[in-house]
Amino acid sequence: MQSVQQYIEAHKDRFLEELLELLRIPSVSADPAYKADVLRTADFVAERLRDAGADHVEICPTAGYPIVYAEKIVDPAKPTVLVYGHYDVQPPDPLELWESPPFEPVVKPTAKHPDGAIFARGACDDKGQFYMHVKAFEAMAATGSLPCNVKFMIEGEEEVGSANLGIFCRENQEKLSCDTILISDTSIIDNEVPSITVGLRGMSYLEVEVVGPNRDLHSGVYGGGVANPINVLCDMISSLMDADKHITIPGFYDEVVELTAAEREKLNEAPFSLDQYKEDLDIGDVQGEKGYSTLERVSIRPTLDVNGIWGGYIGEGAKTVLPSKASAKISMRLVPNQRPEVITRLFQEHFERIAPASVKVKVKPHHGGEPAVTPTDTPEYMAASKAMEKSFGKTPIPTREGGSIPIVALFEEVLNAKSVLMGFGLNSDAIHSPNEHYGLFNYYKGIETIPYFHDFYAELKG
Amino acid sequence: MQSVQQYIEAHKDRFLEELLELLRIPSVSADPAYKADVLRTADFVAERLRDAGADHVEICPTAGYPIVYAEKIVDPAKPTVLVYGHYDVQPPDPLELWESPPFEPVVKPTAKHPDGAIFARGACDDKGQFYMHVKAFEAMAATGSLPCNVKFMIEGEEEVGSANLGIFCRENQEKLSCDTILISDTSIIDNEVPSITVGLRGMSYLEVEVVGPNRDLHSGVYGGGVANPINVLCDMISSLMDADKHITIPGFYDEVVELTAAEREKLNEAPFSLDQYKEDLDIGDVQGEKGYSTLERVSIRPTLDVNGIWGGYIGEGAKTVLPSKASAKISMRLVPNQRPEVITRLFQEHFERIAPASVKVKVKPHHGGEPAVTPTDTPEYMAASKAMEKSFGKTPIPTREGGSIPIVALFEEVLNAKSVLMGFGLNSDAIHSPNEHYGLFNYYKGIETIPYFHDFYAELKG
Repeated sequence: MQSVQQYIEAHKDRFLEELLELLRIPSVSADPAYKADVLRTADFVAERLRDAGADHVEICPTAGYPIVYAEKIVDPAKPTVLVYGHYDVQPPDPLELWESPPFEPVVKPTAKHPDGAIFARGACDDKGQFYMHVKAFEAMAATGSLPCNVKFMIEGEEEVGSANLGIFCRENQEKLSCDTILISDTSIIDNEVPSITVGLRGMSYLEVEVVGPNRDLHSGVYGGGVANPINVLCDMISSLMDADKHITIPGFYDEVVELTAAEREKLNEAPFSLDQYKEDLDIGDVQGEKGYSTLERVSIRPTLDVNGIWGGYIGEGAKTVLPSKASAKISMRLVPNQRPEVITRLFQEHFERIAPASVKVKVKPHHGGEPAVTPTDTPEYMAASKAMEKSFGKTPIPTREGGSIPIVALFEEVLNAKSVLMGFGLNSDAIHSPNEHYGLFNYYKGIETIPYFHDFYAELKG
Repeated sequence: MQSVQQYIEAHKDRFLEELLELLRIPSVSADPAYKADVLRTADFVAERLRDAGADHVEICPTAGYPIVYAEKIVDPAKPTVLVYGHYDVQPPDPLELWESPPFEPVVKPTAKHPDGAIFARGACDDKGQFYMHVKAFEAMAATGSLPCNVKFMIEGEEEVGSANLGIFCRENQEKLSCDTILISDTSIIDNEVPSITVGLRGMSYLEVEVVGPNRDLHSGVYGGGVANPINVLCDMISSLMDADKHITIPGFYDEVVELTAAEREKLNEAPFSLDQYKEDLDIGDVQGEKGYSTLERVSIRPTLDVNGIWGGYIGEGAKTVLPSKASAKISMRLVPNQRPEVITRLFQEHFERIAPASVKVKVKPHHGGEPAVTPTDTPEYMAASKAMEKSFGKTPIPTREGGSIPIVALFEEVLNAKSVLMGFGLNSDAIHSPNEHYGLFNYYKGIETIPYFHDFYAELKG
């Protein structure tokens, strides 16, 4: 009978076609305008899981977008791997910066991806990555070589904070019971240097509004006499960080775990060229918290970024208006042991406290996520490490990433199982940006590696 | 034969209908989308001037929108009054805040306008005000009682900086030769307290762009390590004013003329209630330059206001993006003897100097205008004062206004004639804001007062 890898090789063109079809559905969870498309995506994923050979495929309703569940229990005595992923994507704007339409995938080579990369919103985050598991599963199932039981939980609200996933997990602990959670929603250092993510930052995301006069005013008639909400918002935002880019919110750093000198040294050993980094981004210089390297700033240190700001006249030409209000979306990346609900409260209290009497402020929390650090001595980490070693020919480096996958902490708490973050993207894949892409090399390498993971995990765990 | 005032009384309904028709044309000069409408407005104004009895009515082309010229020379020996106004209007947005569509005028009473006010973009600024002159002229012409020669110069680019008016004046000095320029584009203190504007602030208007990374980035992957252009823009804007709301641009105040204690005392005698002001705007407190009253801050002191700001994700929900760039529209109101071109240069140099190495900045000047102070001992001022005294029954108070009418300085320089700013609006008429309106009382009071002005001016000048 055909081996798993032979099966993959024989069907790789179809595996790509199916992914492109999935990428054509604009499943933008943040924008209600795409609701029907997001729901359609759930149907598509469920259908593909059935085709791949899964049993009990369900589209489980939630208060928000549904969660697609599927399973294949080959033998209750064998270990069970729960695959988590998300079928929703980030909004595509700014649209004008896409070289090809975000939901019309095209494959073309890039400097980092000479064999070609798939350009589309969600190509890497996370459609391309979770779909590798669907195809690897198909290959194992079709060749009768499933070493573990497999469960799938693919959600549609990751990009908006996974508000309903926790509830779903709590209500379905039995159904979701597993030995480990396998997630591909992170990056490797590069195609020559495999890595496994062992640390993730959490997040606190808020929207603020500063309201001044009850109507837009003529800046000549009132300018100088009435607080301008945009100027005030700029003052308030600017005051949130000091000259050393240290966040000024009282209590913000109280729970931050400082790494040991040894840990920081290890972290800074990862291959990184500051010149190449600056060149890649076309920036004159980097900027960040004093006393930390760029690698540390983006992984083990908390941050505060304004993700969006708007107010007043932003159309063509000039309008001399003193606007009634100004708004901003602000997110903070958190590190162990900061708690999002605590940071959100500290931000809210501080922001309201520093507002001058000349304005009113509203602070609306959007969502949060716990930071997490996963151990490297677990069977699942070791299985992932061996699997990558087999497919890449190199032992992967454990790294800490700046992004957030809030559910890692959730899974540990509710499902009492550790997650392993075996992602295959590159940081340069422009996720959350125009021209997001995912290398064909990475897609196929993932499909090749995943069955190895299941083999080693059965071996180490069994 | 019928008197001028009898004629006005007999035709007041038509005078209103004609204004409403003018207000229905959306002549937004700042937005190219309205180009055809702006041009249509020029035709409309020319047509009405012909109907009113003017000779040599011309639509004079410029590099931008045309200037409508008309004249009636009754006797070269008599003094000539040049009426200036503008037929273009401010953009109407934010549209959702209008109680009725901005270009579908409705008349309804308000607290300050119990007899009714016309709600429409341009009702007060400046269609309603310059059209008073067209109708007063009609009344004087129709009753054969024109005491002065009259010329009209109605432009279509006042709201975007009158870029072509200076050129037009220089090229047509002969045609535009006059003894004084009469302008109604300002306010009175209130319907019980007439006033004449003797001071106007100038303006320098710029657009700035702060560019960081060459693409939008994932705030988790890059956050903390790369300068966020929105945060940087907020820092830079915030640094433009100190804690005392003093503008920090080096050299900014060098040419500012400080008023004498006596002048400031006189200025502060104008009726003003801080409590009512705060209540009207629904603000907890005013805010402005330390050491000056609100009346001073909005009239004799320069300002810096952000008129618009935008960057990053401003759609529904949350997007964790570290944007590539952020922009703002910034205007500074200037006072004698600040020169807009100098201030614009100082701003540009300063803004570029304070930009951190982590970003690139672009500064694009939009337009500027000279500040002006007009004397109160001229025949035109005295004629306006007597005219208002006759129609209101009270001597008007000379006031300084915060707004800008750049052409006042231009006229003095190029046409060698003084302007008189006999406006009839109220600061509460929401010009440049949603629900702009103009009182019927004010419209008719203006039409009543203007012929008196011509009478007194002929008397004082002749």
